[in-house]
Amino acid sequence: MSHFAPLPVPPYHAVIFTAQRREGDRGYAEMSAEMSALAERQPGYLGMESSRDGEGFGITVSYWADEAALLNWKAVAKHLMAQRLGRTRWYSHYRIRVARVERAYEGPEGR
Amino acid sequence: MSHFAPLPVPPYHAVIFTAQRREGDRGYAEMSAEMSALAERQPGYLGMESSRDGEGFGITVSYWADEAALLNWKAVAKHLMAQRLGRTRWYSHYRIRVARVERAYEGPEGR
Repeated sequence: MSHFAPLPVPPYHAVIFTAQRREGDRGYAEMSAEMSALAERQPGYLGMESSRDGEGFGITVSYWADEAALLNWKAVAKHLMAQRLGRTRWYSHYRIRVARVERAYEGPEGR
Repeated sequence: MSHFAPLPVPPYHAVIFTAQRREGDRGYAEMSAEMSALAERQPGYLGMESSRDGEGFGITVSYWADEAALLNWKAVAKHLMAQRLGRTRWYSHYRIRVARVERAYEGPEGR
């Protein structure tokens, strides 16, 4: 169950990051680990869920207590990405959606 | 870019479904294709993004025009899942979060 983020009582915020990786690591694994470690130290961090398929298409959803926490993270993440993006290009394309989680539940029932 | 869902102007809704698959297909591929086809025919369907990693942890985010579209989809999806869940158990665990997308953008800049 370690892949799952906690289920705090809504409302809270979600950042849905979908991205197509380019081939080759080019520092990606290092950056990714660093981003995760940084996120965990941010105020208002609630958790993160991530999956990438065999074709390099990935979805990462990070959860944040409030808008301020999310904007702080954006500034930190953007700074770190910007530092690296010049030398290493990981994504051929990405989309980011910022959303407010209104309700949440889990299953299957009885487990 | 076929993995990406469109980027309509917010607000709209997102259903973030994270799930750990159990081993074995047991009708999953068939159900999954059927669910996707059904979703696409629902009023208010805006798109879907999905990724599953080598350990069976997957994230699917579906996007809906409004709350009514989302609730209709929930009823259809739940009905289909319930029909099948008795005989085939695909997930050891899942979490569902319903969120309202407030803003969205894409990158990298210049592409």
